[in-house]
Amino acid sequence: MSTLAVAMFVPAAADLAVGNKEWQVFATGAALTLFIGVMLVLTTRSKIRNLSLRQAFILTTLSWVLMPAVAALPFIFADLDLSYTDAFFEAMSGLTTTGSTVIIGLDYALPGIVLWRALLQWLGGIGIIAMAISILPLLQVGGMQLFRMESSDTSDKVMPRAAQIVTAIAVIYVALTLLCALIYWLFGMTGFDAMAHAMTTIATGGFSTHDASLGFYQDARIDMTATVFMLLGSLPFVLYLQVLRGRPGGLFADNQVRWFLAIAALGVGSVTLWLLDGGPDDFPTTLRFAAFNVVSVITGTGYATRDYSEWGTFPVAIIFFLMFVGGCAGSTTCGVKVFRIQVLYATARCQMRRLLQPHGVFIPYYNRRPIPEEVTASVMGFFFLYVVSFALIAIALGIFGVDFLTAVSGSATAISNVGPGLGPVIGPSGSFSSLPDPAKWILAFGMLLGRLELFTVLVLLLPSFWRN
Amino acid sequence: MSTLAVAMFVPAAADLAVGNKEWQVFATGAALTLFIGVMLVLTTRSKIRNLSLRQAFILTTLSWVLMPAVAALPFIFADLDLSYTDAFFEAMSGLTTTGSTVIIGLDYALPGIVLWRALLQWLGGIGIIAMAISILPLLQVGGMQLFRMESSDTSDKVMPRAAQIVTAIAVIYVALTLLCALIYWLFGMTGFDAMAHAMTTIATGGFSTHDASLGFYQDARIDMTATVFMLLGSLPFVLYLQVLRGRPGGLFADNQVRWFLAIAALGVGSVTLWLLDGGPDDFPTTLRFAAFNVVSVITGTGYATRDYSEWGTFPVAIIFFLMFVGGCAGSTTCGVKVFRIQVLYATARCQMRRLLQPHGVFIPYYNRRPIPEEVTASVMGFFFLYVVSFALIAIALGIFGVDFLTAVSGSATAISNVGPGLGPVIGPSGSFSSLPDPAKWILAFGMLLGRLELFTVLVLLLPSFWRN
Repeated sequence: MSTLAVAMFVPAAADLAVGNKEWQVFATGAALTLFIGVMLVLTTRSKIRNLSLRQAFILTTLSWVLMPAVAALPFIFADLDLSYTDAFFEAMSGLTTTGSTVIIGLDYALPGIVLWRALLQWLGGIGIIAMAISILPLLQVGGMQLFRMESSDTSDKVMPRAAQIVTAIAVIYVALTLLCALIYWLFGMTGFDAMAHAMTTIATGGFSTHDASLGFYQDARIDMTATVFMLLGSLPFVLYLQVLRGRPGGLFADNQVRWFLAIAALGVGSVTLWLLDGGPDDFPTTLRFAAFNVVSVITGTGYATRDYSEWGTFPVAIIFFLMFVGGCAGSTTCGVKVFRIQVLYATARCQMRRLLQPHGVFIPYYNRRPIPEEVTASVMGFFFLYVVSFALIAIALGIFGVDFLTAVSGSATAISNVGPGLGPVIGPSGSFSSLPDPAKWILAFGMLLGRLELFTVLVLLLPSFWRN
Repeated sequence: MSTLAVAMFVPAAADLAVGNKEWQVFATGAALTLFIGVMLVLTTRSKIRNLSLRQAFILTTLSWVLMPAVAALPFIFADLDLSYTDAFFEAMSGLTTTGSTVIIGLDYALPGIVLWRALLQWLGGIGIIAMAISILPLLQVGGMQLFRMESSDTSDKVMPRAAQIVTAIAVIYVALTLLCALIYWLFGMTGFDAMAHAMTTIATGGFSTHDASLGFYQDARIDMTATVFMLLGSLPFVLYLQVLRGRPGGLFADNQVRWFLAIAALGVGSVTLWLLDGGPDDFPTTLRFAAFNVVSVITGTGYATRDYSEWGTFPVAIIFFLMFVGGCAGSTTCGVKVFRIQVLYATARCQMRRLLQPHGVFIPYYNRRPIPEEVTASVMGFFFLYVVSFALIAIALGIFGVDFLTAVSGSATAISNVGPGLGPVIGPSGSFSSLPDPAKWILAFGMLLGRLELFTVLVLLLPSFWRN
């Protein structure tokens, strides 16, 4: 929370620089947040050195609820006419790198607010990578222990300790952001827009400084830059360390990376072919729009340069199901994640081969290593709960009078942290602002659920969690 | 196939009885089918006593493709203006007890054709129960081995051999059908309609003799009868044997039955509450319509007395997701099936408890017995392939220009063998006839896939299946 308070000084400075009084919004927010943060630090400076597992679960979930609660402050204090519901929704959408927005009129908004949204996603992005490397494997959430074993295995060790890894990755994260901003700027964005977009691209967040998202620029070079950096943000950041240590092959030798790129290519390819057939654009233009928008969905970024809701059922269905896929573990993306799909596929394939040879022994492999049974069960539990959560959130949204497409795509986009849904209401050219308040709270809960890999939140609902 | 040929004489007799020439349609069909059937019997009367697993898989899938192929003959020969695609779709929809129809004008159709549709579902229903008891557990398809162990376990053995069990169940099946027909008849249906509807009720098939389905009668007593018998058709038939042997408690002691009834009650309850709020009907009427239509969907029957597509997003979303649930294993229903959901839930719950006590040993249970690990993996593979198949079929339907709701609900209704989809095109008041031909073939494939529990068909696509 103290970090968040310090971060609030950045948009304050931006507003002060252009000389408007909005900077006070952030100063007030920062002061309040800093006060709470420091109070918390002081009151909890006791001698607890090891957190119990229960405490770790509570702490993780609680901090991801409290952070958006205070990050919402500037949105209320600013002159945007947002209710607290809206402000909390926007902050949760920011920190979870979802990118669904309730704010209309971004083009005329003050730089502070626009920058604050970008900062939230950027901090959320590095926050989730840090969590995926340090906390989730320890909590053994949804098969993430697969990656703990990898990093504790001496033969393949990238760096000795989690803290060092996270620091190194933070440096890479900053470097990639600056590089992305530089390229955006070279291709004609203002320095401010370039920085804001670079932060939300690498975080696969999707907040833009314009209502028309990146479609505002109508520039193929910017689209392609964004496509590349969205993909870069979806790969396991830990592999970039290997690249830096002179093993660039490590990136493409990774099975998860290969599958992810193959799925993305398949999606882009089919949508391109579909759009080409009778479409108004030539091949390069069609490919550019298909690649940008499909990659934006599968990586869970949520930028848009076209309203893909209007492309027809075939691409819409592909885009809908790609929402669930997401990127690689250890990246800024959300969704089921590619490694889980690989584990599920490997298990299903083993099952089929076992049908033919009931006494044969078939072991599912991931990255050339056998998948331990507890990982399989963990991934299976995750996938089942993902589908059930998706269904329940969609049904719950139905209570509040939204249409079927809005309900199912809203549930999918929230739980997978994508951003826009499908259809006229919450699709790429719509906004979440018209939804009723309870629907916004449900969606914010969905974002939290997806971001914390379901289990971290759902475990709190177990009666046995609170016993003893 | 020879059985099918003999069955064709029933509608022939019906047509002959009312004195129209359509009986020749069935006579021709029967002659052709009998010829092929007897030829097959004669040519394959070799000395193979044991089928290999591979042969069993091929035989099962092949017979479920060939049967609708010949069962389609009367639909073409009859004066219905159906293409072979339509006829095959209708026959596949019949034999798999799906209940999607391409025929409009049932009220004016000749009794032979109407009876033939009912017979197909009735035969398909008992066929799938026989398969679920005798073949699928041996093939170890999608966790069905759970039920093989049960029947081979001496302590809980209902009857010694599969053939005897199937015979006993066939008797129960006939008895339930006659009872259902009798009650329908007492409540005002004609004898013919009562028999035709009883056959498709107990088979949870859903073909009706009227375009308006059971809504034609506007009779609460008929609705309630249908609701009860649809539920009866969705319970494990093997448990009825226990009831007959003086242990009626066995039915409700079964975990799967309890869960199934609980899920159905939850669905009916929520939809009733929703419809009551501001709806035109009083409580009993609302409950009657909600119960009938929700039970029709969860059991995969597919009758309708109201167009539930128009009920609003909350009930439509519930109905959509209930399509996937289906009934109990060993019944005439399709879908994921309740026992698989129980296995998945038990595993997910174990995973959550393991999160809190990483060194604890948690074993998922089904019906008070630990679930063997290969069953868990098998169910997981099934669930994953179910979701993937659903997505791929929906995407494939999108190619042929149907809208999003038609694509996703069509895929769901086919793979779960429900019947109607959602929306104006294929919803309860629509028909599948307007779909393009390729979409009908895709849906027919989906029905086959769902009916044969995915694996039986998908295993044929493995390259290793055809090696050696």
